[in-house]
Amino acid sequence: MPKLLILSTEADEFRRLIEGAALPRLEIFTASEAKAALATGADCEILYGEAWLMRDVISQMPNLQWAQSMSAGVERLLAPELRRDYILTNSRGVFGQMMCEYVIAYLLAHERKIFERHRSQQARHWDRSEIGRLRGKTMGVLGVGSIGCEVARTSKHFGMAVRGYTRSSESCPHVDVYYHGDALLEFAAGCDYLVSVLPNTPETHHIVDSAFLEALPEQVLVMNIGRGSALDQTALIRALETKQIAAAVLDVFEKEPLSEDHPFWNTPNLLMTFHTSAMSEPADLAPVFIENYKRFVTGEKLNYIVDFELGY
Amino acid sequence: MPKLLILSTEADEFRRLIEGAALPRLEIFTASEAKAALATGADCEILYGEAWLMRDVISQMPNLQWAQSMSAGVERLLAPELRRDYILTNSRGVFGQMMCEYVIAYLLAHERKIFERHRSQQARHWDRSEIGRLRGKTMGVLGVGSIGCEVARTSKHFGMAVRGYTRSSESCPHVDVYYHGDALLEFAAGCDYLVSVLPNTPETHHIVDSAFLEALPEQVLVMNIGRGSALDQTALIRALETKQIAAAVLDVFEKEPLSEDHPFWNTPNLLMTFHTSAMSEPADLAPVFIENYKRFVTGEKLNYIVDFELGY
Repeated sequence: MPKLLILSTEADEFRRLIEGAALPRLEIFTASEAKAALATGADCEILYGEAWLMRDVISQMPNLQWAQSMSAGVERLLAPELRRDYILTNSRGVFGQMMCEYVIAYLLAHERKIFERHRSQQARHWDRSEIGRLRGKTMGVLGVGSIGCEVARTSKHFGMAVRGYTRSSESCPHVDVYYHGDALLEFAAGCDYLVSVLPNTPETHHIVDSAFLEALPEQVLVMNIGRGSALDQTALIRALETKQIAAAVLDVFEKEPLSEDHPFWNTPNLLMTFHTSAMSEPADLAPVFIENYKRFVTGEKLNYIVDFELGY
Repeated sequence: MPKLLILSTEADEFRRLIEGAALPRLEIFTASEAKAALATGADCEILYGEAWLMRDVISQMPNLQWAQSMSAGVERLLAPELRRDYILTNSRGVFGQMMCEYVIAYLLAHERKIFERHRSQQARHWDRSEIGRLRGKTMGVLGVGSIGCEVARTSKHFGMAVRGYTRSSESCPHVDVYYHGDALLEFAAGCDYLVSVLPNTPETHHIVDSAFLEALPEQVLVMNIGRGSALDQTALIRALETKQIAAAVLDVFEKEPLSEDHPFWNTPNLLMTFHTSAMSEPADLAPVFIENYKRFVTGEKLNYIVDFELGY
């Protein structure tokens, strides 16, 4: 009977959900941190957990065949010194909708001047100054995987044109025009909104740099919901301070949590959230594991296998 | 040759757009207020304008055959003492998308705690407190015409269930369940969000009253983007002050602009905007007139004819 180790601060809730699925032949162990995990579940063949916790146990699980991450980002499991003799899968298809709500929330807060209108209310001012709209704008999606494709789909719903920048794939039907390779600045030049959904890989490091920011139109709103490493922080601060770009919204940072003295806290026209754009609940995530476990026991190919070289 | 009087503070822009459409046989007069309108355009057969300006001229246009309002709401032209011996059409199909952006903007600001997150940023606090989502919620649309149907369509896009309350029609395919007549409180009881798109008619007066507000679940967010008269202000203030409902967002009011001493300015958990949810530009509106003019000259039935009795 396969043994599963669930490693999460919400391990009990995941156990309840997985037990509820009545999966065939499965013994379940749970832990909320590495030490307890190794005490009870070191001989498990399957690991399902949060990537940052998994990192500390994979080297001490001799029978490990398959590890499923609860997040999309798995860069913590990709360091060259870590083993790669197991199948690593990540979670996809569950974050897109939450992240779309995030993207649209902040685009509309910007266009609808939600903060300014609130200040007008506080000042008892009947404020009918002009507001903007999404309809007719051009959305640029940097990295069009399953999340980026959801962002594209919602952008089309609101009547936007959508351009996508990817390494090579063109599989999302909601993107009007694709750009690849050297066409990065050409891609940037037409965006009213720029949303980066890129993972943390050597190829995406600081892809949004000063040259990219200069290529963007000055009315652009830049949003990062992928990984902080895609964006050159110093270049962004300069672009905002000099009004080279209109605004930015960041959910992810090169180092999280952000240090208390980081200049981002009061950079002008920068709104921040705190890696919560895709805050998910176990009930959203567990189905990804459950489907993959069914594939595992029947010998089918697993969904969402991570390529250790590509990093996603 | 038919004579058209354009009566709007943006009359010149409307003239440019209508001239650009190269309509057959049309002489155009423009004015931005009633006195000038009557000096130059009193003998026109066609009036295209803002309803609040039109009210002061229709009685003095002996040749008037057709008046097209630039807004959806035309209650100013429906007073019993005003003439009804002409065809009155309003503008539809152009406000829905802007109003959807408004609805989604404020629903997401609420769920995503945009104001709280901003305060956390100002306090340099890495705030990962829980946030809500639209997906899985139930939207209640009070009044399902073309605007309400757009709100329903966007609600479905975000994975909401949609219930609609109408007098009798069930023509919008994006509504899951319809309620009519006496089923008003039953309709209210299941709503996570309530959006009123109702026009100002005797039947809709204070339809959102204390009984209705009591029937709503306590987590509900109430939004009014139709006409202020649909909502009993005193009852709403009490419901917000006693936390009987979670929050409200109002764009329309019984008397606009809101007086400086109105209690709404600082009612708790109430956000206000200032009749700007569907702020439209001449370029959005002119096509409605242009299409109707083509129908007028060919003798076809006009779009969006207002029933003086029903009031919409």
